Amino acid sequence: MIKKLLIANRGEIAVRIIRACMELDIETVAVYSEADKEALHVQLADEAYCIGPTASKDSYLNSANVISVAKLTECDAIHPGYGFLAENADFAELCRECNIIFVGPSPEAITKMGTKDVARSTMKAAGVPIVPGSDGIVETMDEAKKIAGEIGYPVIIKATAGGGGRGIRVAKTEEELIKGIEITQQEAAVAFGNPGVYIEKYIDDFRHVEIQVLADTHGNTIHLGERDCSIQRRLQKLLEETPSPALTPEMREKMGQAAVKAAEAVDYTGAGTVEFIFDHRNQEFYFMEMNTRIQVEHPVTEMVTGIDLIKEQIYIASGKELSVKQEEIEFNGWSIECRINAENPEKGFMPSAGKIEMYLPPGGMGVRVDSGVYPGYTIPPYYDSMIAKLITYGSTREEAIARMKRALEEFIIEGVYTTIPFHLQLLENETFVGGDFNTKFLELHPVMNKK
Amino acid sequence: MIKKLLIANRGEIAVRIIRACMELDIETVAVYSEADKEALHVQLADEAYCIGPTASKDSYLNSANVISVAKLTECDAIHPGYGFLAENADFAELCRECNIIFVGPSPEAITKMGTKDVARSTMKAAGVPIVPGSDGIVETMDEAKKIAGEIGYPVIIKATAGGGGRGIRVAKTEEELIKGIEITQQEAAVAFGNPGVYIEKYIDDFRHVEIQVLADTHGNTIHLGERDCSIQRRLQKLLEETPSPALTPEMREKMGQAAVKAAEAVDYTGAGTVEFIFDHRNQEFYFMEMNTRIQVEHPVTEMVTGIDLIKEQIYIASGKELSVKQEEIEFNGWSIECRINAENPEKGFMPSAGKIEMYLPPGGMGVRVDSGVYPGYTIPPYYDSMIAKLITYGSTREEAIARMKRALEEFIIEGVYTTIPFHLQLLENETFVGGDFNTKFLELHPVMNKK
Repeated sequence: MIKKLLIANRGEIAVRIIRACMELDIETVAVYSEADKEALHVQLADEAYCIGPTASKDSYLNSANVISVAKLTECDAIHPGYGFLAENADFAELCRECNIIFVGPSPEAITKMGTKDVARSTMKAAGVPIVPGSDGIVETMDEAKKIAGEIGYPVIIKATAGGGGRGIRVAKTEEELIKGIEITQQEAAVAFGNPGVYIEKYIDDFRHVEIQVLADTHGNTIHLGERDCSIQRRLQKLLEETPSPALTPEMREKMGQAAVKAAEAVDYTGAGTVEFIFDHRNQEFYFMEMNTRIQVEHPVTEMVTGIDLIKEQIYIASGKELSVKQEEIEFNGWSIECRINAENPEKGFMPSAGKIEMYLPPGGMGVRVDSGVYPGYTIPPYYDSMIAKLITYGSTREEAIARMKRALEEFIIEGVYTTIPFHLQLLENETFVGGDFNTKFLELHPVMNKK
Repeated sequence: MIKKLLIANRGEIAVRIIRACMELDIETVAVYSEADKEALHVQLADEAYCIGPTASKDSYLNSANVISVAKLTECDAIHPGYGFLAENADFAELCRECNIIFVGPSPEAITKMGTKDVARSTMKAAGVPIVPGSDGIVETMDEAKKIAGEIGYPVIIKATAGGGGRGIRVAKTEEELIKGIEITQQEAAVAFGNPGVYIEKYIDDFRHVEIQVLADTHGNTIHLGERDCSIQRRLQKLLEETPSPALTPEMREKMGQAAVKAAEAVDYTGAGTVEFIFDHRNQEFYFMEMNTRIQVEHPVTEMVTGIDLIKEQIYIASGKELSVKQEEIEFNGWSIECRINAENPEKGFMPSAGKIEMYLPPGGMGVRVDSGVYPGYTIPPYYDSMIAKLITYGSTREEAIARMKRALEEFIIEGVYTTIPFHLQLLENETFVGGDFNTKFLELHPVMNKK
């Protein structure tokens, strides 16, 4: 079992990981940038070390410094959290070379899933449904035109090295296709150092449904059901829930099995998420990508299964078998997560750094808060604006929503703007409450962002 | 359905009830004493009214003022919480006369369970196991000697009007019996206005195990499993858990059925708790008393069943049927509650009122906080010293304990002494962790109270 763990992250996820370690009696080492010396994760860890200046690239992304601290403090493992070094195959490889356990999958699995056209062809070979499109990179314009003609317009052009909504372009006609490929290739060459693009059928009306998987080093891979993350603003998730209001038990089972197949195809180990495009109108789903790390929205899965995903990551990294079998997993009730960002939703979600003058998180039944802030803490302007995750549980979706509204109303954060008013409006929206929406919900139903 | 509810209480339970109402879209009216105008329940309710001076008897126990506010604000119901007016049959009767729903059982049920010898004989008639002893009040000293001789010494002498550890005396010999009855009768006449005493076999080595029941007005009565409250200091519960480490599934079933029988015997409606003396060495249990109200420790039951007991109380009081059937209730995992009191455990648990300078409740997976305080709040010295309940959930007892330790370590309350250090020591105690203990645990294993 891991005895001492370095957490190569900050904010709520660093706090989340430290909490799991405290419960498992694992010693913790926090690292922080010069801007973060007052951060909560620094205070909660057993030891804490500054690893560089404010800029992420000089601190949280500084592999050499992170590894040095791990070695000097005799940590046997590093947890990367999400973002920063979490899906960096080179860093995972470096850990391996330095004989430090990387709490995550192998560098090979990260690489396979991180390269979009490789992931796509690997999934195709494994029998995981993929969106109809090119077999890997399109080499010539003629090939592109032929494939687009076969699958039908509109199509989507994607840079293989892109991600997070970058390097993507939709083409409705052959003319747009030719222009789009040229521009995307040029952009991708500059932005990602790789001009390769591929094309896929463009699905307009879909839900973002993802499956949580866990795989140990003994050949066991299971899934823990889905999360519906269709509520997005500019591809940034704002609210997530499980179960998905759109999934039948049969579809959940099919999608879960596909996710297990996807993980097995790359010899995946650890916690991961297989994201699907769920064409809810036609009841079809397609592989979108696999996130080879713990995700922001993991708590909703924990609320309905009772399984602590961070502890499972640590057990797996320690070489233990999964603590549960597929058939032992029970899904109880409904859970929703609202991301509380220090942003002003009335001013285009403009980030709002500054000092938190008053802070009182909500409490009571079915309410969970994961946060990295405290009264008097000054939110630095240099990093992610998410300051807390508010998660509720209810026996039904209706109860989870009512409880979320109650908890949001109770939540006191003074001194900075937050997305709390946005969520309160969202939860009043009839279409949201009805449950029948897609990833365009926030474009079609502007919430607090009408201008 | 109830539309507007007055909460005739203060502190965390008032906040708890307001939260349930917010989730059910019920308007709330808070009442408060002059000392409580800054209290959290006053701030969270839709309306709030001062009902009198600081002394409880002039405010929270002032039935007439409570009823007046309910009438003036057009409330259709009053929730009494626990303590104060909660088990006051006269108040329940007054509500009935004023055409206000009392969220609790009928005055008749309260009276039957509140009079100890009546409760005892009612239980006996219903077939609920009672401790061997006298049939009701002992009328003569000869009768007392005869019964004590039959059941064997030691015996316990109890004033029928006593409660909460008052009006109780143990006798090991006939001489002690005679003296004990005389003194207890005299004391009870003065303290309770009723000199009646009865005698029972004294059980020394037992666990306090209680069963949560719910009964609607349509004849449905169910139980929601047990809570083990054996960790007590001077009959005050300090830590509660469910399930009980001492109960087999068969014993749980037997005890649950006995509790349902007890409730049915008095036509009980609402949420109630049947407390049992569990003679764990001999695997026998006996009726102790029934608490005809919601209890402080109700959240542990909510954590393992997912059922919101305050909402069930409100549904029942509104005339609805129970939302679950006995066979639908599932028990998942383990839950523990630690009562965080503003007391100094190193100085004999001396109350510690004053201003909370810094306050940050713990968060993360499996942690629930029910509290009535906030940063900057001044705890008045006039009422109960409990300022928060910290509840954890784990898939096993081990995990619930580990999580509780982590949450206690994280909990920041500055400005007053609290029982947090006591709980941290308790959770390290091997006998506690082993699970084999009785109600004398804190006498036998002094925790932070050695002198």
